[in-house]
Amino acid sequence: MAPESVDLTVRTLGDCRIESPLAPLLASTESTEHYVDENDRVLFDDTVNMVAARKAKLDALPSFEPGGPRRKIFFQPSKTRVGIVTCGGLCPGLNDVIRGLVLELTSHYGVTKIYGFQNGYQGFIAKYGHPPIDLDAEAVSGVNEYGGTILGTSRGSQDPYEIVDCLESMSINVLFVIGGDGSMRGALTIADVVKERGLKIAVIGVPKTIDNDIPYIDQSFGFQTAFSKATESLRSAHVEARAVPNGVGLVQVMGRHSGFIACYAALANNDADYVLIPEVPFQLDGDDGFLAHLRRRVAQRGHAVVVAAEGAGQEYLESDEPGQVDKSGNRKLKDIGLYLRRRIADDFAAHGMETSLKYIDPSYAIRSVPANPYDSVYCIRLAHAAVHAAMAGRTAMVVGRWRGRFVHVPIALAISKRNQVDPAGDLWMSVLETTGQPRRFA
Amino acid sequence: MAPESVDLTVRTLGDCRIESPLAPLLASTESTEHYVDENDRVLFDDTVNMVAARKAKLDALPSFEPGGPRRKIFFQPSKTRVGIVTCGGLCPGLNDVIRGLVLELTSHYGVTKIYGFQNGYQGFIAKYGHPPIDLDAEAVSGVNEYGGTILGTSRGSQDPYEIVDCLESMSINVLFVIGGDGSMRGALTIADVVKERGLKIAVIGVPKTIDNDIPYIDQSFGFQTAFSKATESLRSAHVEARAVPNGVGLVQVMGRHSGFIACYAALANNDADYVLIPEVPFQLDGDDGFLAHLRRRVAQRGHAVVVAAEGAGQEYLESDEPGQVDKSGNRKLKDIGLYLRRRIADDFAAHGMETSLKYIDPSYAIRSVPANPYDSVYCIRLAHAAVHAAMAGRTAMVVGRWRGRFVHVPIALAISKRNQVDPAGDLWMSVLETTGQPRRFA
Amino acid sequence: MAPESVDLTVRTLGDCRIESPLAPLLASTESTEHYVDENDRVLFDDTVNMVAARKAKLDALPSFEPGGPRRKIFFQPSKTRVGIVTCGGLCPGLNDVIRGLVLELTSHYGVTKIYGFQNGYQGFIAKYGHPPIDLDAEAVSGVNEYGGTILGTSRGSQDPYEIVDCLESMSINVLFVIGGDGSMRGALTIADVVKERGLKIAVIGVPKTIDNDIPYIDQSFGFQTAFSKATESLRSAHVEARAVPNGVGLVQVMGRHSGFIACYAALANNDADYVLIPEVPFQLDGDDGFLAHLRRRVAQRGHAVVVAAEGAGQEYLESDEPGQVDKSGNRKLKDIGLYLRRRIADDFAAHGMETSLKYIDPSYAIRSVPANPYDSVYCIRLAHAAVHAAMAGRTAMVVGRWRGRFVHVPIALAISKRNQVDPAGDLWMSVLETTGQPRRFA
Amino acid sequence: MAPESVDLTVRTLGDCRIESPLAPLLASTESTEHYVDENDRVLFDDTVNMVAARKAKLDALPSFEPGGPRRKIFFQPSKTRVGIVTCGGLCPGLNDVIRGLVLELTSHYGVTKIYGFQNGYQGFIAKYGHPPIDLDAEAVSGVNEYGGTILGTSRGSQDPYEIVDCLESMSINVLFVIGGDGSMRGALTIADVVKERGLKIAVIGVPKTIDNDIPYIDQSFGFQTAFSKATESLRSAHVEARAVPNGVGLVQVMGRHSGFIACYAALANNDADYVLIPEVPFQLDGDDGFLAHLRRRVAQRGHAVVVAAEGAGQEYLESDEPGQVDKSGNRKLKDIGLYLRRRIADDFAAHGMETSLKYIDPSYAIRSVPANPYDSVYCIRLAHAAVHAAMAGRTAMVVGRWRGRFVHVPIALAISKRNQVDPAGDLWMSVLETTGQPRRFA
Repeated sequence: MAPESVDLTVRTLGDCRIESPLAPLLASTESTEHYVDENDRVLFDDTVNMVAARKAKLDALPSFEPGGPRRKIFFQPSKTRVGIVTCGGLCPGLNDVIRGLVLELTSHYGVTKIYGFQNGYQGFIAKYGHPPIDLDAEAVSGVNEYGGTILGTSRGSQDPYEIVDCLESMSINVLFVIGGDGSMRGALTIADVVKERGLKIAVIGVPKTIDNDIPYIDQSFGFQTAFSKATESLRSAHVEARAVPNGVGLVQVMGRHSGFIACYAALANNDADYVLIPEVPFQLDGDDGFLAHLRRRVAQRGHAVVVAAEGAGQEYLESDEPGQVDKSGNRKLKDIGLYLRRRIADDFAAHGMETSLKYIDPSYAIRSVPANPYDSVYCIRLAHAAVHAAMAGRTAMVVGRWRGRFVHVPIALAISKRNQVDPAGDLWMSVLETTGQPRRFA
Repeated sequence: MAPESVDLTVRTLGDCRIESPLAPLLASTESTEHYVDENDRVLFDDTVNMVAARKAKLDALPSFEPGGPRRKIFFQPSKTRVGIVTCGGLCPGLNDVIRGLVLELTSHYGVTKIYGFQNGYQGFIAKYGHPPIDLDAEAVSGVNEYGGTILGTSRGSQDPYEIVDCLESMSINVLFVIGGDGSMRGALTIADVVKERGLKIAVIGVPKTIDNDIPYIDQSFGFQTAFSKATESLRSAHVEARAVPNGVGLVQVMGRHSGFIACYAALANNDADYVLIPEVPFQLDGDDGFLAHLRRRVAQRGHAVVVAAEGAGQEYLESDEPGQVDKSGNRKLKDIGLYLRRRIADDFAAHGMETSLKYIDPSYAIRSVPANPYDSVYCIRLAHAAVHAAMAGRTAMVVGRWRGRFVHVPIALAISKRNQVDPAGDLWMSVLETTGQPRRFA
Repeated sequence: MAPESVDLTVRTLGDCRIESPLAPLLASTESTEHYVDENDRVLFDDTVNMVAARKAKLDALPSFEPGGPRRKIFFQPSKTRVGIVTCGGLCPGLNDVIRGLVLELTSHYGVTKIYGFQNGYQGFIAKYGHPPIDLDAEAVSGVNEYGGTILGTSRGSQDPYEIVDCLESMSINVLFVIGGDGSMRGALTIADVVKERGLKIAVIGVPKTIDNDIPYIDQSFGFQTAFSKATESLRSAHVEARAVPNGVGLVQVMGRHSGFIACYAALANNDADYVLIPEVPFQLDGDDGFLAHLRRRVAQRGHAVVVAAEGAGQEYLESDEPGQVDKSGNRKLKDIGLYLRRRIADDFAAHGMETSLKYIDPSYAIRSVPANPYDSVYCIRLAHAAVHAAMAGRTAMVVGRWRGRFVHVPIALAISKRNQVDPAGDLWMSVLETTGQPRRFA
Repeated sequence: MAPESVDLTVRTLGDCRIESPLAPLLASTESTEHYVDENDRVLFDDTVNMVAARKAKLDALPSFEPGGPRRKIFFQPSKTRVGIVTCGGLCPGLNDVIRGLVLELTSHYGVTKIYGFQNGYQGFIAKYGHPPIDLDAEAVSGVNEYGGTILGTSRGSQDPYEIVDCLESMSINVLFVIGGDGSMRGALTIADVVKERGLKIAVIGVPKTIDNDIPYIDQSFGFQTAFSKATESLRSAHVEARAVPNGVGLVQVMGRHSGFIACYAALANNDADYVLIPEVPFQLDGDDGFLAHLRRRVAQRGHAVVVAAEGAGQEYLESDEPGQVDKSGNRKLKDIGLYLRRRIADDFAAHGMETSLKYIDPSYAIRSVPANPYDSVYCIRLAHAAVHAAMAGRTAMVVGRWRGRFVHVPIALAISKRNQVDPAGDLWMSVLETTGQPRRFA
C-alpha cells in the first residue's frame, strides 16, 4: 500500500522568514505547541507487520509533512493578494471552504486582497466575461447555509499560460483551487508554469470529490453529507419495493470509479439487498449471476433493493464510442442504472415473473445540498490548513487529512491513482455482512 | 502522548483453534486479506519527529492489536451463548450497536442464543425483576430507527460476583457491555471475577460516551449525531439573541470533562461568539475577564452567543458538598449554565446595561435521537469488530477506532484517563479562529 | 361553484338504534356536544353575494352532512367485522390512516375483527394469492413512522361481484377503501353490488390523492408532506442553475390534472421563476411564448428555474396512441418534463446561447416518505371520522374536510370532477406575484 | 358561537377611486374574477341547524368582508409610504411575512418607500435609538430561510400619541403591525389616534400567535411549524421514559391560554399518554386524580409521557403575587411544568415507587426556527392579503383565514376573546381517543 516510487516531498517557494501574525493567538510563555514543528512527519502507513518491522528504520518510512500554522511564514500578509476558484461539479461544502479561506486569511493573517474567480478556470480568461469579485468577511457571511458555490463553476481546463498571465497581471501571490481530479491536474500545470517563469505564486489545492476517490485522504469533504442524503433514496426504493408484489427498487448513486457512497449508504440502514460497485466486477447472467440471484430473492421475500454506483459494471456497456470524455477530461460513462433496469425487467419477463421496478437516480438532490455539521467543521479546518500551507510558501500541493491528521500531499501524488473500496478490506466485508449478498456473482 | 507505562496487550481466553465460519464469505483462492494477520499491529502514534526517529526501533514502538476477523476463532459458534447489556445515559446509536452485534452473531457466525439483559447491570440481579429477553434478527429489525435502547438502561454498578453467578447459571460465553467509563470499570471487574474463577467468558466493551471523552478512540459513536443536533440549539440561541436589543444567548451542552461537543458545534456554523470548555480555565471577573469581554461585545455588535460545556468553569461552583457522586460514580457537577446565567445578568445590571438573556439546555433532545447515517455506519462496523474480537477469545478489552483502523484496546487503558480537547491543538485553535474569542480570559 | 345537479345526500344502510359505546368517553350530565346533531348541515358555499342573498332561503342551500360520532349507531361493535384495503400509488399518510382506523375501531368501539386485504383489490381475489392479514393495535404500532403502506397496494380494478363474494364469505360488515379516483369508482361499484344483493355492508372511502385533485375536500392527506418535500427539488434546481453560466433548472413534480404541488412548492421558497400547470395552457413558441421568455430571463439574470406539473402542456405531446390508459384507468401522460428539456435545449442552441440544463424528477422521493406531523394529525382525525360514519351505517361515501369541518361526501360526487387550481383565484395569483412570470404566454 | 354583539364591519379611510396597478396581472377580456366583488361576504358560521335554518334570513347572518385585491384602491402607490413593525415574542414565519409585504408592495403595487421600524414599538420612539431601516426586494432576499425577525422585536407598548407623531413626521400612509394580542391592542389605539387627528393612515395587523389563540382565524401562521417541532420533544421524552424502569417524560409546551400545540403534537405521533391543557381543568389528587392515574399507568406499562401546555392547571399555582404582568401585558404564569415535576416526584416517592423523571421545556427551540413550507406559503399569502387591504384603505383590522378564505377581521373583534380548544369538539375528542386518557380527572 506504500506509494513507493512516488515523491512525498512538498514543493516550497522559498524560506520562511516572516514572523507569523498568529503569534498573539497562539504564543504563550508556557506553550508553543500550536505551531507545527518543521521536523515532524506523519507516517504514511501506521499498520506494521511486527516481523517485518524488526528490519525497518523508522526515519526511512514514507511520511507526510503535517499541516498547521508555522512560526515563520513566507508571504508578507499585508502585501499578499489571493485568488480562489471552484471547478467541476457541485459538492456539499464548497461554500464552507470558500468562507473558511476568506475568514482565516482576513481575520488571522490580515490579508486584505482576495479575489474570487468566477465559473472555474473560465474566470481567468477574459473572453468568457466573468470578472473576478472581491471577497471579504461580509461577502462570505452565511454562504455556508447554501449548497452550490457562490463563485460559480464550470467544467474543463483552460490554457495554463493564459491563467498565469492573468495571475501575474493581477499580482496574485496565492491561488487556491477547489476542484477534483481534472482540476488538480490543471492546478499542477499552473504551478509548473509559475515555476518555469520563476514567479513566487503558491498554488494550493483543496481536493473536492463527492465520490471520496482522491487517494491519501481519509475522506473528502462533502462525502458524509452525500452518502447521508443518498440513504434517503435507498429508503424510498425500499418503501416502493415493499409496497407492491415482487417490487424491485433500483438506485443509482454517484461513484464513477469508487463505490464509497454506495457502500456507506447501504450500511447506514438496512434497506439495500445488493450493492454493486466499480471495484468488484460481477457476472449478470448464469445461475450464480446477479440476475438469477435477484430473481430468487424477490421470489422468496417479495421484494429487493439494488444500489449501484454509476461506475459499476461498465464492462457491460458496449463502448461503441471509445475514448469519449467530457469537458473535465472524465471518461463518459454509460448509464449502468438504465442498463440494469432494462436487464432486470427483461430477466423477470423471460422467467414469467411479474415485477414492478422503480428506478431512482438522485444525483442533483445529493450534490446540491449544504454541508451537514460534520462536513462544515471539516471544511473550515481544511481551509485553515490550506491557508497555513500557502502562507508558509508551499505550492503544488493539496491539503488532506490522513488518519486524522491534516497533511500536505503533493498534487502529483494526489492525482497518481484513485482511492477505491478495498474488496479485501473491512468496509466491503461489512457491506457483504449487512446485505447478505454473496461474495461474488460468478 | 505515548501511554508509556500502560500495557497495550489484550487479554485472551486461550488459543484460537476453530475454523472461522466466515470462510465462505471471505476466503478465495486469490486473496485472504479480509482476515487480520496476527502479526499486524497499529502504531499508537503516527506522528514522528524525524530527529528522534533516527534512534527509534519500529518494532519497539507502542502499538495496538488490529480489529477484524481471524482465520481461527476460540468459541464454537453453535455452542456459544451471548449476553448483551446497555448501561448509563442514553446516546445515539445504542440500538444500532445492539442490532449490529445480533446480526453479525447470527447471520455470519451462526450463534443462536443471544440474551438481552435489561436495564443495565440491574438485569443480572434477580431482585430487580427484569428478566433477560431473547434477541434475534427479528427482535432487532428496524430498532436503529429509534433513539434510546431497546434493552433499557440504568445507572450504577452491581456486585460483580452476582453478575458472574448469573452468567454462569445461564452458561453465557460472551458478554458485550455497551456503556461509559463507569460501566467499563464494572466490565473489568466482571472480567477479573471470571478470570478468578477460571471461567471462559469473554467480556467485550463497546465504549459509549456522547462527550467523546474515551481515550485511544478517534471518535465515540453517537458523537457526530450529538454535536450536529447541538448546532440547532446554537442556532436558536443566535436567532433569539439577534431579535432583541442587547440579546445574549447562552447554551449549555454536554461535556462533563471534555469540550468536544461545544467545539464542534461552534465550528459547524458561525453562531457562537464564545466557547467555554473544561480544558481551558477562564477568568470571569476583571477587565480582561469573560464577563467584561462579553459586555463589550454586546455593546458593540448588539448581541452575542455563549456556548458552555457542562463541565466548564467548575472551579466557580463552590463545592459545599464535596465528593457527591451519582449512581454511576460520576462526580455530580454544579450547573455552570445556571451559574453563568446569573453572573451575566448581574454583570449587565451592575453596569446599567439592559439585556435579554435566553438560556437553552438541550441535553435530552440531543441524546435521545436516532444515530445519523454516519454514526449508523460506524456503529455497525464497531459491532462487527466487537463480535470478531469476542469470537477470537479476546476479553477485558473494548473495540475502538484509532486513526481510522479498528483496534482492540485493553479496558484498563480505556479507563486510565479522559480524552480531552488539546488547548494547544488544531481543534481548539480553529475554535479560537472561528469565534474570534481571545486565547484566554485573564 | 355549486354542485347543482349532484346529490349531496349520503346513503345509509338503515336506522341507527344501537347506543354508541363512546358514551363513557363523551357523555356527561352537563354536555353532549361531542355528538353530532342529526339536523346539522355544513353549507356547501360560505361565500355569499349579499345582493343575491336577499332572495335565498338558507335551508334550501346545498349542504353536507357533518362527520363525527353519533349517539346511536347502526352496527353492533362486538359483532362487526371490518376490512381495510389500500389501492393505487403511494402517498404519505397511508399507514397513519390504517393505524387510525384500527385504533379507533378497537379502542373505542370495541371491534375485534379487522382484516387487512393485501395489495389493493387483488387482495379480495383468491387467484392472486395474497391472504388477508389480521389487524390489531400491535400490528399497527409505529407503522406511521414509515412511508408506503403495510397492506401493500396495486393498480387496477377487479370484478366487484367477486369482491362482494369475498366480503360475504368472510362476513365483513364494513369495508374501508383508501385510494384515489379510480379506486373510489371501484368502491362505488362494490357498494352498488352490495345494495343489489340487499346486504348490510358499509363501504367507506378515505380519498387518497397526492395531487390534491379530489373535489369537495379542502386538502387531501399527504399533500402538505408532498409539496414540502418537492421544495427540496426546487432548491436543488436553483442551486444547480445558479452555479453555472446560463444555468436552467427544470423540475417535474406530480400533478396529472392539477397543479397544486407545483404552486405550493413554488410559493414556499423563492426558487422558481416559472410554474407550468395543467389548468393554465401556455404557448411555447413565438416572441411572447414560454421559450423566448425563458431565454430572455436567463440572458438577463444568468439562470432560471422552471417547475412543471406532469400534466402541464399535454397538448404539446402528440397522442399517437390515443386512449392509452394504465391499470388504474388513468390516461397515460406523455412526459412533459422530458419534452420541455428537449425544447429548451433546442431553443437555446437555435439562438446560439450556451446553457447547462439540469432536469429533476423527484416523484418516488416525494410519495414514499412518512407523513409530516400535520398530515399525521389530519390522517388520524380523518380515520376517526371514517369510523364514526361506518359505525353509523353510512355507505357509498368518502370522508373529507370542507372548510375545516369533517363532512360526508357521496362517492358519486367525489368522482364527478377534479379539484383544480383556479386560474382566477388567489392561489394562482399569488404564484404569479411570487414568480413574476406573465399572466399568460401567448 | 356567533359573535353576536360584536361588529364585523371593517373601518375604511374613504372611497376607493384609484385604478389598481394590478390590472395588467389580473384583468383580461374574458375574466375579472381575480378581483374581489365588493358585495361578497364570507359567512361567519357555515354549520347550520336545518330546523333553525327555516326561520333564518341568509343576508342577515353575520359575515366577514373577504380579503383580496380590489379593482379600485384608495392610496396612490407611487406616493405611498409604508411602515412595518414586528412586536412581542418570536414565532416562525415573521420574516416570511415581512418579505411577502415588501415584495407585494414593490413588485406589484409599485410602492417604493418602505420603512422597517426596529425592535417593536420602541422603533417609533427616538429615545431608544433604533432608527428605521429601508426595506426593498434586496433587503428581504432570503430572509425567510432564517428564524426570528430581521426587524428585531421587543415586548411592551409605547405611547400611541408619540407613535402617531412619528408616523406623521415620516409621512407614513400605511402601517403594518405584526404582533400578538397585546400588540393588536396597541395597533387599535394607534388607529384611534389616527382617526382622532383626522389622518389618512391605514393600520393593518397581521396577527401573530404561536399558540393559535387568536379568534376568528382558522390557524395562525407559524403554528404548524411550532407543533411539528414540538413533536420532537415528545419523542425525546418518550425515548427517555422507555429507557429506564418506571420512566416518566414530562414536556411543557407553549400555550398560555390554549392547548392547541399540546393537542396537535400529541396527535402527530403516539408518544403522549396524557395531555393537560388550560381549557380542561383537572384534579391532581384523589384516586381518580391525575397523579394516581399516572402512577397506575407507569406501574402497568413501565413508563408514561405527559404533555402540559404552559397555561394548564394554573389553579394549582398559588397566586401570591396576583396581577403580575409582563411588559406585553400578559399575566405572568407560574411554571406548571416545574410544579408537576415536583408533584409527580413526591407522589411516586410517597407511594414507595422508584421513578426517573425527565423534564423537557423546548420553548426557544420551537419559536426560533424558520417556517416550514406550509407556513411559508401561508405567510406569503397572508402578506398579500394584508397589502390588498391596506391599499384599499382598510384600517383597524387584521387579516385572517376563516374556513379557508382570507377575510378582514376588525381588530376589536380579534382581541375580544381567545381561540381555545373546545372540550366538546372533535379535536379534543381525538386527543382523548389517541392518548386513552380519561375524559376527566376528578
